[in-house]
Amino acid sequence: MVNEKMHALGVEPSAIRELFAYGLARKAEIGEENVFDFSLGNPSVPAPDAVRIAAQELLGMPAASLHGYSPAQGVPSVRAAVAASLNRRFGTAYSADDLYMTCGAAASLDITFHALVAAEGDEVIVVSPYFPEYKIWIEKTDARCVEVPAREADFQPDIEALRAAITERTRAVVVNSPNNPVGTVYSRESLEALAALLEERSAAFGAPIYLVSDEPYREIAYAGVEVPWVPSVYANTIVCYSYSKSLSLPGERIGWILVPPAAADARDVYAAVCGAGRALGFVCAPVLFQRVIEACVDEPSDVEAYAENRALLCEGLSKLGYEYIEPQGAFYLWVRALEPDAQAFAERAKAHELLLVPSDSFGVKGWVRIGYCVARDVIERSMPAFEALAQEYAE
Amino acid sequence: MVNEKMHALGVEPSAIRELFAYGLARKAEIGEENVFDFSLGNPSVPAPDAVRIAAQELLGMPAASLHGYSPAQGVPSVRAAVAASLNRRFGTAYSADDLYMTCGAAASLDITFHALVAAEGDEVIVVSPYFPEYKIWIEKTDARCVEVPAREADFQPDIEALRAAITERTRAVVVNSPNNPVGTVYSRESLEALAALLEERSAAFGAPIYLVSDEPYREIAYAGVEVPWVPSVYANTIVCYSYSKSLSLPGERIGWILVPPAAADARDVYAAVCGAGRALGFVCAPVLFQRVIEACVDEPSDVEAYAENRALLCEGLSKLGYEYIEPQGAFYLWVRALEPDAQAFAERAKAHELLLVPSDSFGVKGWVRIGYCVARDVIERSMPAFEALAQEYAE
Repeated sequence: MVNEKMHALGVEPSAIRELFAYGLARKAEIGEENVFDFSLGNPSVPAPDAVRIAAQELLGMPAASLHGYSPAQGVPSVRAAVAASLNRRFGTAYSADDLYMTCGAAASLDITFHALVAAEGDEVIVVSPYFPEYKIWIEKTDARCVEVPAREADFQPDIEALRAAITERTRAVVVNSPNNPVGTVYSRESLEALAALLEERSAAFGAPIYLVSDEPYREIAYAGVEVPWVPSVYANTIVCYSYSKSLSLPGERIGWILVPPAAADARDVYAAVCGAGRALGFVCAPVLFQRVIEACVDEPSDVEAYAENRALLCEGLSKLGYEYIEPQGAFYLWVRALEPDAQAFAERAKAHELLLVPSDSFGVKGWVRIGYCVARDVIERSMPAFEALAQEYAE
Repeated sequence: MVNEKMHALGVEPSAIRELFAYGLARKAEIGEENVFDFSLGNPSVPAPDAVRIAAQELLGMPAASLHGYSPAQGVPSVRAAVAASLNRRFGTAYSADDLYMTCGAAASLDITFHALVAAEGDEVIVVSPYFPEYKIWIEKTDARCVEVPAREADFQPDIEALRAAITERTRAVVVNSPNNPVGTVYSRESLEALAALLEERSAAFGAPIYLVSDEPYREIAYAGVEVPWVPSVYANTIVCYSYSKSLSLPGERIGWILVPPAAADARDVYAAVCGAGRALGFVCAPVLFQRVIEACVDEPSDVEAYAENRALLCEGLSKLGYEYIEPQGAFYLWVRALEPDAQAFAERAKAHELLLVPSDSFGVKGWVRIGYCVARDVIERSMPAFEALAQEYAE
């Protein structure tokens, strides 16, 4: 007699969670150093020291004001600091009133979908492969999650496929660049083509189609690749951010939603964001970390360790003949499975103590995701295992 | 073209928020010491020093493990510590697996309602006056929020009125003791009568009716009054807790849901809680404060300051002839308005710089709520204003 959908979600097996649990058990069995666990997206780079320093200083504040409620949208000075930082970086003119502080990326996206989906049967488009929780959050609003595969060659958005998928029920398209699970960064050219398409279709249907830009990996980009500021390319962009990756604070659940004032019906969207936050119970994001963000808003992300891992992994796998998408950002390598069935491939990899996530988890077939947010030596020591695995398929 | 319900919630005027904003503006105008702001439930007692000490120590941990993701349900050792603390206090035998750590009371309740409401048109009963967000969270699940007034004499639950309101669609009844806004503590006798009713009606309809016990004020009780452990009185009780009031951490958003193993379909309810947490984006409660709770789980609440405020306020208002409900817990005094229209009364109180929340916000007419979680001198200095207000009505 409990809610069947919620129950089903609670007991649904998750390949990532199961692989992670298997890894923990296996490490206990054969020693941590003998298991090559690439299953997770938990940053291996620690939070910058500025976070600890800011938190320690804040703990010296009078406790009643430090830990008290903030306004539902967040501490005004925190939102002002985030807006000022964006303005410095992107030449924009946002204010505190355009921002809603959230309890992490999940909250940012869930609130935004609830604000934008107007009625049951509305549609939200995601580009596959995609982070699997998107579908759950979208369907929670009673909208339909419409999956449109990325271009096969480079995993950039497929404009013609998107054109075919957009209907008058399309409320939003979700983009995630730098991308989890592929590591691609959407080029300015791709985003401009997408903007042109959305402008054309919005005009045709007489209602704005919003772009929801999920950007937790914005700061994790390599070799000087441009990560365009999406609202500067398409005005009707709502940005969902989290500090989980950029400041390595995934467990602290802190992020924000930006409704740029130039977006269509911006004040109504912002009001709906406030209402959705209220209805979902996401008011007053955790305050200590709101204030930590105010202090660390311009703190650079430490990308170097990931860049080294990336180079090491790409070089190693390349030599062994693996096919992969050269990652431009995030900390994932998207590797072609050595057989069509990625789950079977991941199972065979497990026999070599390699924990890889099959692409089926992200809505596509035939690939695996390698999370290289791990200690450097895990990559170094895993190479013989990757070699043995490739060997097995060569025979 | 945004979601209308969310938009309406976002722009809906809130008497409490508006009064608070008015208070801020008024303080700036005439001086903080001249405004008697009783509008909020933000604890005036600071978090115990143990919280700061625990947080400072935790910040010495390696940052990557300190701030990393926890399992969706929360850090296992944190849940085990909470279970052990409950077992010590209530002679129970809960385990980590019965607990789900949450991002505060809003999350606890929202998740629980989503887990228990099986279908549109199900009903959840609340006892009025009640915390206004209950209705919003209940309606978010597509259930109907059924309001049943408390007994007028003492604001204990009205068993006969509840009997009349229960139908075969009733999935849960919400109790909140110590109570916001009235300050009553439900007696063992009341809870036993409620349990007998729910057992009888569950048997009659062949499906369990759950009691959702919202307990953020459990630790704030006066003069040795018993606050019964509700699951020991009624097996099918789900407990929703938050440390906002007991440890004065409202802004940090940390609490839990307990699904006692003796509750009907306990494992299914727990699975639905996990699924609802996932669907709503409430996984992995803020980790630093999860760990602070582990360290401070047996920390006593500092009730003394509230007890003094309560005595001072009751004595003062009693002398002035105000009628009120003697509070046994929480930090609110429920005072009869001096005219039938509580909103008009609160407006007249404002002219004396007294900020009182009219009872209309809590679903009933004719009373005001005085939040006495304020500095002692605010109460002392407010007495002439209460006197002048009473005088005005006496004339």
